[in-house]
Amino acid sequence: MAELLGTDRRTHYCGDLRREHAGQKVCVMGWVKKRRDLGNLMFIDLRDRSGFVQLAFDDTTDPALFEKASGCRNEFVLCAKGEVRVRSSINTEIPTGEVEILVDELKVLGESETPPFEIIDDCKTGEDVRLKYRYLDLRRSKLQQNILFRHRVAKVTRDYFDENGFVEIETPYLIRSTPEGARDYLVPSRVHQGSFYALPQSPQLYKQLSMVAGFDRYFQIARCFRDEDLRADRQPEFTQIDLEMSFVDMEDIFKIAEGYIHRLFKETLNVDIPIPLPRYTYKEVMERFGSDKPDMRFGMEIHDLSDAVKGCGFSVFTSALEEGGSVRSIVLKGAADKFGRKDIDKLVDYAKGCGAKGVAWVRRAEQTSSSFAKFMTEDEMNRIYAAAECDEGDILLVMADADENKLLPQLGQLRLEAANRLGIKREGYSFLWVVEFPFFEYDRESGEWLAMHHPFTAIMDDCLPYLESDKGRVRAKCYDMVLNGIELSSGSIRITDPVLQAKIFELLGLSDEEAHAKFGYLLDAFRYGAPPHGGMALGLDRLVMQMLGAETLRDVVAFPKVQNASELMTGCPAEVPEQALRDLGLHPDQIAERK
Amino acid sequence: MAELLGTDRRTHYCGDLRREHAGQKVCVMGWVKKRRDLGNLMFIDLRDRSGFVQLAFDDTTDPALFEKASGCRNEFVLCAKGEVRVRSSINTEIPTGEVEILVDELKVLGESETPPFEIIDDCKTGEDVRLKYRYLDLRRSKLQQNILFRHRVAKVTRDYFDENGFVEIETPYLIRSTPEGARDYLVPSRVHQGSFYALPQSPQLYKQLSMVAGFDRYFQIARCFRDEDLRADRQPEFTQIDLEMSFVDMEDIFKIAEGYIHRLFKETLNVDIPIPLPRYTYKEVMERFGSDKPDMRFGMEIHDLSDAVKGCGFSVFTSALEEGGSVRSIVLKGAADKFGRKDIDKLVDYAKGCGAKGVAWVRRAEQTSSSFAKFMTEDEMNRIYAAAECDEGDILLVMADADENKLLPQLGQLRLEAANRLGIKREGYSFLWVVEFPFFEYDRESGEWLAMHHPFTAIMDDCLPYLESDKGRVRAKCYDMVLNGIELSSGSIRITDPVLQAKIFELLGLSDEEAHAKFGYLLDAFRYGAPPHGGMALGLDRLVMQMLGAETLRDVVAFPKVQNASELMTGCPAEVPEQALRDLGLHPDQIAERK
Repeated sequence: MAELLGTDRRTHYCGDLRREHAGQKVCVMGWVKKRRDLGNLMFIDLRDRSGFVQLAFDDTTDPALFEKASGCRNEFVLCAKGEVRVRSSINTEIPTGEVEILVDELKVLGESETPPFEIIDDCKTGEDVRLKYRYLDLRRSKLQQNILFRHRVAKVTRDYFDENGFVEIETPYLIRSTPEGARDYLVPSRVHQGSFYALPQSPQLYKQLSMVAGFDRYFQIARCFRDEDLRADRQPEFTQIDLEMSFVDMEDIFKIAEGYIHRLFKETLNVDIPIPLPRYTYKEVMERFGSDKPDMRFGMEIHDLSDAVKGCGFSVFTSALEEGGSVRSIVLKGAADKFGRKDIDKLVDYAKGCGAKGVAWVRRAEQTSSSFAKFMTEDEMNRIYAAAECDEGDILLVMADADENKLLPQLGQLRLEAANRLGIKREGYSFLWVVEFPFFEYDRESGEWLAMHHPFTAIMDDCLPYLESDKGRVRAKCYDMVLNGIELSSGSIRITDPVLQAKIFELLGLSDEEAHAKFGYLLDAFRYGAPPHGGMALGLDRLVMQMLGAETLRDVVAFPKVQNASELMTGCPAEVPEQALRDLGLHPDQIAERK
Repeated sequence: MAELLGTDRRTHYCGDLRREHAGQKVCVMGWVKKRRDLGNLMFIDLRDRSGFVQLAFDDTTDPALFEKASGCRNEFVLCAKGEVRVRSSINTEIPTGEVEILVDELKVLGESETPPFEIIDDCKTGEDVRLKYRYLDLRRSKLQQNILFRHRVAKVTRDYFDENGFVEIETPYLIRSTPEGARDYLVPSRVHQGSFYALPQSPQLYKQLSMVAGFDRYFQIARCFRDEDLRADRQPEFTQIDLEMSFVDMEDIFKIAEGYIHRLFKETLNVDIPIPLPRYTYKEVMERFGSDKPDMRFGMEIHDLSDAVKGCGFSVFTSALEEGGSVRSIVLKGAADKFGRKDIDKLVDYAKGCGAKGVAWVRRAEQTSSSFAKFMTEDEMNRIYAAAECDEGDILLVMADADENKLLPQLGQLRLEAANRLGIKREGYSFLWVVEFPFFEYDRESGEWLAMHHPFTAIMDDCLPYLESDKGRVRAKCYDMVLNGIELSSGSIRITDPVLQAKIFELLGLSDEEAHAKFGYLLDAFRYGAPPHGGMALGLDRLVMQMLGAETLRDVVAFPKVQNASELMTGCPAEVPEQALRDLGLHPDQIAERK
């Protein structure tokens, strides 16, 4: 049986011991990281959340104690007392490397079987096994540090918003499902059988109602839930830094958010993010980077070749122009000696995979090769080079489409892929705002104008006059914060005027009835004096992941789920007793049948 | 249509304006609380979360502006600019009562229909209506202040635990249902049809796993969910201040918790709670107050009359003693001239409603009356008076039972009821710890020993020797924090030694299989080096409610649910589209049928 803690208490964390502690009697507690037995000399590295320290047992050690220490295996939990002394051989690579504890009292507080994998940072064991034993994986110093860092981020966040007059309001997790809530997790009600709660995809409704209630400034670090197929790196539950302010316009929100980012990076990473953050319109980032969340840590910007190719001999280009589209390019600087024909083909294939019709290319080297130069005069090619800023040694990729809304994002994806394949280094923290999103989006197929964002998004003051006459020109008071090519946050100023709201619904072809089914309680609330308000929500998981340069959300979430939304450690979701289902008015046979 | 905010910004909150602002041009924004029209003089009280201030319009006001102000009705949202001036008639009852703003610019930012009830603190409208329009009810200053106060409590809580080395770890909300989790809310999985997540009743499992993972000190302000019939004042979701520490025993947790309580009350209410908090054993509070969560703000303690009535002529007393029980009393000091026979009968009925067999009583007045004195000698009565500390003018209530575990709680309930009926004033904050709970509870019916708490609760070190030989003597390392008769918090040191754990399961008659089905992943985790640890959880909602002297949880929860677990504002839970159910493998017809 394990020994009792009794009255022993830790005097220091393992990782905190330094040369200045030499001569002190200390008591440390932690896990055996490694034991080295050198005959009449033995060392145990003892680990806690602060790091580790070396315990020493030598020929002065009581034989029974030495014997006891010999029995300690990896991951045993120990309480060790003794005097700190300067080591004979100093290890400069670890913070405690100058000292060791000559142990004179040792308790085994907990024993351990051989763990299923070694608790080291560079662990090669598959992630599935590590997730099954998440409590062991979390002992790895990297994950420990990530979770401790995440706590620090949350703390600074709360300090900042509190100091700025925001009140944290806990909004409910058992809420009403929204009609379009196809990705809602549902919770059957026992009291009202046949009825369901939904888990919130965001606290949007409640934060707006908090503004109507007069709380003026709301924030919350809130869990959100989305039942979607977990493509790429997503979690079914995720955490959002959510805020909303009354009596403000966009500038006020930018200022608060920028102050936050600056304070956060300074306090946690000692990094100075220059503020105000640069601001770009949607139009500009789409035309220059083919993305509304551009990674600006490298160039490779898109150029418009439409003028340069006007009237040229290549019908792919000219017909795109005739149909009202454009011809655009990116240049892979100095890539001609890195990328051969095969590499270019791979990029072309990639673009086609993204839906592109094709990619015309030039590899401008001593022996220039090209997929389309044969259709062009030398003069035309030179005009293209000039417009594309393509020099000797570069690779030029050109795409043409009648629909710019397709062409630009495809070229944007190709830009990122090319940068990845070229191994372009992307370092640092590149923040920006994207603003002035179009309010309406024209759907070519249905010929209808749809809302690009939430239909409660306000429109820019100067767009009011042509709300009806020129929908394509109407821009929204909607803004994204982008970090290193990732949409970190999205927000908007909301419409609060019932008259304007009704007009917008009408323009979107939404009947009063539909609008009421979708947004009823909020529309009701707005009838009783809604202040102008707006806000945003930042993804905390993604923010922490970017700050740490982590590769997956699972490295910054303590108890994550895997792609199929299950948790490997506890094996959830799981079956539940039939009676539990009957109590909810659900029919277990029915469920069994379907499986 | 409402006017645009444009470039106007608030310079001050309404409630912050004072005499020293006189002469300043200010801009305030808020809601019309009241408008008074005195002909060529008009006042509007404008309200925001800080309070309200008087806007003035007089014969110097531009007629068009005066006209506009005349059109403003209650709950309109205004932006008002003007100069602060000292009022001609000062109102000393409100903080801004010395000043008013002579308005020279006014915008209507939002109009309001006539609200369904008047937004005043002393609102007489039924709670159902107010909950339907919660966003309006929350405009009442009392509720606003409660929610702002709650934010402050959460902030101080996080500051304190952060400063003490606790790391806030977000534990999952989609977890595995526990086999005994009869009160779990279930969430059907779409990906794994027929399987379910549960919403956590507490983060217990994950916080213990966090200790196994080496995080040393964990805390979280966590939402918890319990699907039970909402008796009295409960919410289906509630918030818990949850903490866990490694390498500690009870004293360490008391110290942290007491430091927290002291800091919290000092910082938020400027109240000094004396610490350390008084500590009582379970045995003592049961014997003195008949409750493991005694309200000590008044006396009326229980006395043991067993010795005094030994061999007396009243068989109800003597037979209880013969069966191994006891005879106990409470005294209602000086109540003889307040309570007549009918009042006493009501108390007797109340006790019977709690399961008591009966209550013997004496009303000791000039004309003493009693339900049992006729069976006693005067000498015996005097011995009873002495043992019960019952004087002239008091009422004595006596109960007898063969089973003390029934008698004491019944007497405890009677004590509270008597205090309520006597209208005994209970003020202040009376904290205490209850410790040394019995580990095992003897079930007279089944003849089995059951775990009184979680079977992971550790036992007192000195109880190890008689774990098997004398179960009734084994006390648990389990502690409750009690405030004003409410169990604010419960906690324990946990068993972490697999050998001892197995022994406990055996003593509880729990097979290996059952134990593993119930606590599998935790038992697995403990095989790989578990540190000694323990913790507690405080109910945040109840704490805030007590601090504010609020009458219901609904006064300290921003968006509460009512007794049948529905939210009146949004009407949830609600029906969802059939397709949503089909996607989850649930059968909507089946559900419809059952309704």
